[in-house]
Parts: sequence; structure tokens; C-alpha cells
Amino acid sequence: MKSIPVLLMGCGGVGRDLLQHILTCRSLHAQQGLALRVVGVCDAKSLIAVSDDDLLIAQLTDPFLKEICRFKASSPSAPLSDLKTFDECVIYTTESAEKVVEIASNLGRSTGLVVVDCTASAETIGILTRVVDLDTIPHIQSFTSFALDSYLVGAGLPVITSLNRILASGDYVRCMIGSLSGTLGYVMSEVADGKPFSAVVKEAKSLGYTEPDPRDDLSGMDVARKVESLYPDKMGPGKMSLEDFLGSGLPLLDEDVEERIKAASLRGNVLRYVCIITDSSCGVGIQEVPKDSALGRSKGSDNVLEIYSRCYNKLPLVIQGAGAGNDTTAAGVLADIIDLQDLFSS
Amino acid sequence: MKSIPVLLMGCGGVGRDLLQHILTCRSLHAQQGLALRVVGVCDAKSLIAVSDDDLLIAQLTDPFLKEICRFKASSPSAPLSDLKTFDECVIYTTESAEKVVEIASNLGRSTGLVVVDCTASAETIGILTRVVDLDTIPHIQSFTSFALDSYLVGAGLPVITSLNRILASGDYVRCMIGSLSGTLGYVMSEVADGKPFSAVVKEAKSLGYTEPDPRDDLSGMDVARKVESLYPDKMGPGKMSLEDFLGSGLPLLDEDVEERIKAASLRGNVLRYVCIITDSSCGVGIQEVPKDSALGRSKGSDNVLEIYSRCYNKLPLVIQGAGAGNDTTAAGVLADIIDLQDLFSS
Repeated sequence: MKSIPVLLMGCGGVGRDLLQHILTCRSLHAQQGLALRVVGVCDAKSLIAVSDDDLLIAQLTDPFLKEICRFKASSPSAPLSDLKTFDECVIYTTESAEKVVEIASNLGRSTGLVVVDCTASAETIGILTRVVDLDTIPHIQSFTSFALDSYLVGAGLPVITSLNRILASGDYVRCMIGSLSGTLGYVMSEVADGKPFSAVVKEAKSLGYTEPDPRDDLSGMDVARKVESLYPDKMGPGKMSLEDFLGSGLPLLDEDVEERIKAASLRGNVLRYVCIITDSSCGVGIQEVPKDSALGRSKGSDNVLEIYSRCYNKLPLVIQGAGAGNDTTAAGVLADIIDLQDLFSS
Repeated sequence: MKSIPVLLMGCGGVGRDLLQHILTCRSLHAQQGLALRVVGVCDAKSLIAVSDDDLLIAQLTDPFLKEICRFKASSPSAPLSDLKTFDECVIYTTESAEKVVEIASNLGRSTGLVVVDCTASAETIGILTRVVDLDTIPHIQSFTSFALDSYLVGAGLPVITSLNRILASGDYVRCMIGSLSGTLGYVMSEVADGKPFSAVVKEAKSLGYTEPDPRDDLSGMDVARKVESLYPDKMGPGKMSLEDFLGSGLPLLDEDVEERIKAASLRGNVLRYVCIITDSSCGVGIQEVPKDSALGRSKGSDNVLEIYSRCYNKLPLVIQGAGAGNDTTAAGVLADIIDLQDLFSS
């Protein structure tokens, strides 16, 4: 039986669903000769981990993992330190980030370790960078580069695995164009149906598709760095309150969006908020795409990726599926962990 | 450098494109530490292979493989035995099938071997069965089961690799529905646009999308065993000549197809010729699918597969791309060979 140590950062939303998937899949993974050994679980405030003495063999027990899931489901904002029992484990509070790096360093030098970041926070980047930069044995180095290759795209869609297949066959990827934000996919397909931009954004917010401040989605920063924002600078956070933006700012944008949609329609196109990658450029923004392409026909919050290559020349390879949902994303994260199994010894 | 021995059956169409891809990818594969060693190439009549003494180290040279490609491109129906030179290799004619099994047996017990069937013939099944049944060392047994898992679907679409990912994450596949015949996909989307069935079939034939006798496609036998034929028994091969079928038989089917399309349209559906797999059944035939689903919106000869699972519940995971083309299919075969690399030692 091959044991894969896992340290999980973030145990609300996706993280909680990941723990549940791990528990559900115990017998499936056992059939594959695999056992996922959860050595630690963090939230924003605390880390619960096996004790240092037991780091190479112990794990958070399944009943205890279930208890964590129950606790986080019923009290999403309460810290892990409010749990009533800690099983055989140790709880770290103020020093939790240091402890994560220490555990990664120890296990990186011995069994290897999968560090999974299921937070929506940028604060964990510092920890991840330190974990990745650890100057340990070649084992963790190869692990690291592989892990960086295999990051999750499109809420778990099989994008990286499909790309690897295309590249292995000697095919040459010319261009990728994708709608990889479920929120913006929903907004763009609804405005194409004639609804005002402001009404659609408010609707998306009430459906829980957007962040609490929808400008976090509309700025495109969730998709990439080089971006076109869907609102002007002067309506940005800091310059305008959320209330003013929703009340008076947003409706000012309706006319502009409507005109762009009409102009596109005359050319047989629709507007989509997409990420485009070619061999010389990468950009994110509103783009006209043919009405009858996979991207143009997409509805709702589905993620869509079109890959054009030498083989997929006139018509692209299309990968399309749910672009949101903790359950789906957690399943994708779990598939990524299982993909790393060859890096661990039996 | 890891060496992967390959024996290729079929060197017209897809097989020829595969050889060309192997040659094109030499430096790419070398960067990945891989070398594909082609030990033999067959057509329907003959096998050209390295001599028995050199089986463990020699290969058909790149200039010779190029010569085979050139020869098969200029004289598709001429046998390999008409080649002017055979390099350092041996040509087997009447006994070629026996020799393939012998080579597979020898290499199966030592280095391992990838046997690639790029023929459109059912005659190779006997050879493949014997190769797979070879009672050799565990090495070839694991190789065999893996090879059977990884067969090509949908002209090289990343279907199996995506399914493996879904299953590894503990997700549960409820249903798969796919249009996996480029030819029938083309026919069904064109008749939906109002053209008579008979005209569309003749058009598909003139575009080279169908087999010489289009009934080979229309019978659905190309897709699976449990099938609904698009023509009645009495118009089958043996009961009606190809000429009569195209001239007088085919137009008799127009009215029926048109009525089914109209009835589906009243329910917001279109007709597609699909394969449906659930956990309890598998069938192939004409099916009504929602007009605005990925299958319903598909045009031309694209293959489309929808996967419904616990995670992809209301909206399926969709994989869509070119459903035909030797070049694309050959790239998929090459990706399958590269996927087997872990079964070979350096």
C-alpha cells in the first residue's frame, strides 16, 4: 500500500468537500493500492497536525476528519481551535504558518508531502513559496516542479491532462481561448440575451455567483494579471463604495455594453470575457467570438476552453463543463493529488 | 534514454501519418528521454522487420521509414513487397502474421513491445488476441491490461484520460452519451437543417466522409454492436446492390427521417445518432437530444461526448473535437504510445 501524506490548507468550502471526498474514496483508493494520510489541516487561524514524534506514520483519524467537516459545515466562520476535542493531535495557533513549513521540510526530506491550498486567500502564497523553495533532496524538487505543472484549471476540467496528451503526440498548440470564470461566463451570456448589464450583475450577486463585492469578479483579476476590467477606474474599490457602485455606478455601464453587443451581432459574433493565449501573447478581456462556436454558444456558468493546434485546425478541441461548485472543484483537486502518486514510494 | 519498441500493423492512412509523426517528433521525444524504436511495419500482405538476431537493439532506420511513407503515399494499394530496397531488414510475406506473434512473444519476454493496429480490418483481431494471450512474464501482462484500457476513442480525443481523472477523484459516472462517428454526425446535423436524407448521404459520400459503400456507416456497426441501422434490412448489402440503394432505396427513407425530425422539433429536440452508456445498458441509435445541448448544437463531423456524473450533474462535462482525419487520429495513437512509457525500463 502506497501512502501519500497530505497537508490541507483551508477547510471551508472546497477544502471541506475535499476531506469528504477523501473519506468517501477510502475503499476506492485502497483498491488502487493507495492511502491518503492527512497529517494536518489548517484554517486561517490554526493548524491541527499529528505530533512531531508521529509525523512519519500517524494521521488525523477518519472520525476526527468527519468531526472537522461537521464543525466547519455548522460554524463556517469559527476557528478550528473552537473544536471540543483534538483527537491525538496538536493544535498550533499563532505559529501555524511556521509549523506548516516545518512539517513540509521534514516530510519533504523523507516520505514527500502534498501541500494542498484550498483557501481563496493570497496570504498562503508566502507559505507555499517557502515550501516550494525548501532546499531538500531531489525527491521534493521533482515533486515541486510536477506539482506546479499540474495546477487546477477551470474548476477541475481535464485541461492540463489533455494539453499534455496533445504535446506528447508532437502536435503544436497555436492558440487557446477560454472562458474560465463561471461568473463572467454567466454575465456575458445573459447580457447577450438582451438584459441590462447592471441587472445581470445584480442577479449574479443574488444567486451567489459573485464575490460579496462583484467588482472582485468584474475586474478580471480572478482570471489573470493582464486584464481588461468591466468597469472604469473611477468606479473602483476605494474610489466608490459598494453601495454607490451597485446603485448608481453600474447602470451607467449598461449603454456601452449594449452598443458593443449590437456591433458584434452585426458581424455574426457575440461578446465573451475570455483568456487568450498564443505563442507570443496572453491577454484577458472582452472578445468577439463567432456566435456558433463552442464559446459563442456557451450558456450560464459553464467553463469553456478551445484549443487550436496543427491537428485541431479549423475546428478546435473543446473542453467544457461546470465552472464552479465546491464539490466539482474538490474532485478535481483530489484527481490532482492522485496524479502525483508516482512520486511517492510504496 | 528509454527505448520503446513499436510494431506497426497498417501503413496506409493513419499508419502512414503515425510513422510521419514519429519521425517529426524524434527530437521532442529525445528531450523527454524517449526513443521510439520501430522494429516492424506490416501491411495486409507483408511484414518488414529487423532481423531476429538484431531484435533487441535494431530498428527500421529513419530514411527507410521515410521511404515507406513515400511509397505508400504514391502507391496506396501496392504491397510493401514492391519496395525496391529493404534496408538491413527482412521481408516476410505469406507467414507475416505468424512472425508478428513471434516478435511480440520474444520482445514481450524481454524489453516489452507496443503493437499498434492502424488497419481498418477485422482480420488483425486474431493476431492481436494471440499477442495479448501470450503467456509470458508479468511485464507483458501488466502491459497488456494497460494497453486494453487505453484504446483510442473519438479519433484521439482525450476521453479515456479524462474518464480516468473523474474516476480517480471518486466521482461516479452516471451516463455517457456521445456522437462518435464523424460521418453520422455530419449526416444528422445536415438533415436537421432540412436537406433530404438521401441527398445528404450522397453528399457525404462525394466528400469522402463515408466508406465506399455508405451502408457500412449507416448500419452503425462502425460504432458498436448493439445498434439501430439507418436503413431497413431489405436494403442491406447482399439484398440490394449499392447502385440500387443509392438510386432508388435511399430516397424512400427521406420521408420517415423528415417526420422524425419534425416530431423531435416540436419537443425542442433534434435527432442525433449517438452511443449511450449507463451503468445498466449500452445502445447505439437515433436519439432525441435537447436542441441547446452540446450534442444538439454540434455541427459537421465533430465528435462530441457528454459525461454526466455526480459532479457534472445538470450540465455534463463535454469533450468535443475533430471526429475524423488521419493526421489527428495518428497524433492520438502516438499520445497513447507515449502514455505507455512507464511500462518500459530505461
